[in-house]
Amino acid sequence: VRVAVVAVGDELLLGDVVNTNLAWLGETLAAAGLPVVLGVEVGDDVDPIVAAVRTAFEAADAVVVSGGLGPTSDDRTLLALQQLAPRWTELPNPVGTAPGVRTDVAGRPLFAVPGVPGELRRMVTDHVVPWLRDRAGAPPALVTRQLRVAVLGEPEVAARLAPLEADLPDGVRLAYLAGTAEIRVRLSGTDPATVRAAWDRAAALLGDVVAAADDESLAARVLGLLAARSTDLAVAESLTGGLLAATLVDVPGASTVFRGGVVAYATPAKHALLGVDPELLARVGPVDAEVARQMALGARSAFGAGVGVATTGVAGPDPQDGVAPGTVHVAVVGPGLHSAVGSLSLAGGRSQIRAQTVAHALDLLRRALG
Amino acid sequence: VRVAVVAVGDELLLGDVVNTNLAWLGETLAAAGLPVVLGVEVGDDVDPIVAAVRTAFEAADAVVVSGGLGPTSDDRTLLALQQLAPRWTELPNPVGTAPGVRTDVAGRPLFAVPGVPGELRRMVTDHVVPWLRDRAGAPPALVTRQLRVAVLGEPEVAARLAPLEADLPDGVRLAYLAGTAEIRVRLSGTDPATVRAAWDRAAALLGDVVAAADDESLAARVLGLLAARSTDLAVAESLTGGLLAATLVDVPGASTVFRGGVVAYATPAKHALLGVDPELLARVGPVDAEVARQMALGARSAFGAGVGVATTGVAGPDPQDGVAPGTVHVAVVGPGLHSAVGSLSLAGGRSQIRAQTVAHALDLLRRALG
Repeated sequence: VRVAVVAVGDELLLGDVVNTNLAWLGETLAAAGLPVVLGVEVGDDVDPIVAAVRTAFEAADAVVVSGGLGPTSDDRTLLALQQLAPRWTELPNPVGTAPGVRTDVAGRPLFAVPGVPGELRRMVTDHVVPWLRDRAGAPPALVTRQLRVAVLGEPEVAARLAPLEADLPDGVRLAYLAGTAEIRVRLSGTDPATVRAAWDRAAALLGDVVAAADDESLAARVLGLLAARSTDLAVAESLTGGLLAATLVDVPGASTVFRGGVVAYATPAKHALLGVDPELLARVGPVDAEVARQMALGARSAFGAGVGVATTGVAGPDPQDGVAPGTVHVAVVGPGLHSAVGSLSLAGGRSQIRAQTVAHALDLLRRALG
Repeated sequence: VRVAVVAVGDELLLGDVVNTNLAWLGETLAAAGLPVVLGVEVGDDVDPIVAAVRTAFEAADAVVVSGGLGPTSDDRTLLALQQLAPRWTELPNPVGTAPGVRTDVAGRPLFAVPGVPGELRRMVTDHVVPWLRDRAGAPPALVTRQLRVAVLGEPEVAARLAPLEADLPDGVRLAYLAGTAEIRVRLSGTDPATVRAAWDRAAALLGDVVAAADDESLAARVLGLLAARSTDLAVAESLTGGLLAATLVDVPGASTVFRGGVVAYATPAKHALLGVDPELLARVGPVDAEVARQMALGARSAFGAGVGVATTGVAGPDPQDGVAPGTVHVAVVGPGLHSAVGSLSLAGGRSQIRAQTVAHALDLLRRALG
């Protein structure tokens, strides 16, 4: 069963919202063995919706229409469906007001579901996927395994995996999903053993740059390693300005390991709150590897924590005291750890440099603990 | 000139990436007086691309194809175009390797541009928009004005704007764009004076809940108000865990006003680093309005800053010491300010509660300064 998706809404065509439903449906339906072969975005008018559904059925065996089901005059999906199918079955919407619809168009299934992401996801998971999988004779589901790499770019990751790509087992797909400060290597296929073997080989080829596996974030991995050592963590941040702490706190249960942090954004605070040597600051300025190390020591001491991590650098857009944007130092200190400092030259805009700095600091900590 | 967009790539249909190009193209082309009337996503195969382009020309006067222009065997857009148009003009790509294409299909313009967002944006801005605007006889561009509201939900914002909606001037469109911790009210139209008048009326109806206007963020607004008072800022955070500081630091030039912050995530740190009364902490616990106020005072004092802001509360997912997730207190202190504490009961998951807390803290500060 190949599926086409028709997303209805003027707000999509006007760019008021990014349509995340298409990606979610693509991933969810592919995982269920129901590949999406076409996506269409169309405005809130009857004739274009009817035309889009007809186009969708030319490419696919089943169609999912999202959006335009609400009670207002802008919502025209049901008016369009009346031209395509005389009767339908309502699908309950336990998390919203507009029910969904299942019907047949010339003997092929059509579903209409709400456009609100939470309502769409619930209805597709509860009704559309089970119904279509049953209709399709329970096709094999897709197994997906991931490896996450924080500190290399996509070309370097691809170079390391070239031997696997040259010799990829039949039925396994390899994809690189690039985020701001992370590449995810995704292996998928219908046979769990083959996917697992390819994933093992990818892990061996990547070696110690693998930051975390599957759905675990690097921050969660690091907190787990710290908990396994029965130690705790404090951070000191300059250019990341709280983003390192916020990334750690984003992990539920972080409070068992994470004590807190100091955002020493102004240079005098690096001395006053973290005890960085004022003569060092006067001599070399705040963007320096030894300053980073002393900040990490200061964070440990301020919170009485076992391990300290620090960031300092220039996020840009302008140079700071003659130091170029992207110049960054991260440091990790703690008993039984190799005291580690990373000095980096990062590319990108202000937010990208800050996000990459957080990833590098967490990855340095992961390696120190590993 | 109505435009249809065809986005090419298996990765879009598989949900590996969210297609942000469609929204950007929709907004950019609408602003240029070139409305997008259809969007199509299709995989990396010649026949489906050809079929999608034909469908696109049924709905529109011009077609923009994105993606599939690279040098690898997956890139099939040019193979598909060969079936539709015998010859074309190359468009330069100053920020990438694959050039774009302009051609005619049955006398109507077709552009093919790279799928990489940065390359697509540059080529559309430099070539597609000027060419199509010229072809369309320079249609009136769309004027867009925005108002940002941080602390009300969409229904409350819509209720306040009901008189404007009931009486919206011809040619003006009103849209609500909901983010995690912000509603943007967008007014657009082709006549600047009419849009401005509608925007003025919306601002008057919303009153003091307007957090910022147009492209200014609430954090930038607050930093501007502090700079205008020649004062500076320090923060103390518990549940937001650095996100308040990071949101401020996200604004370029924040360092002129923002001194730093303490993430006092563990309860003892609220006393040790921020000087919160330990008897108060023992008696009422960390989630309390007076604790928030003392944390804000402690942040001011630790950084020698003029103004202090603090957050404390329960982000969840589980209750903490019997206090329900979403229970939050924010505080603002500073000379010449009304010392302000906000006690909130927020809904949503862990990240949403933290993001809303940041918005409420910044908005409390905005009102105290306003």
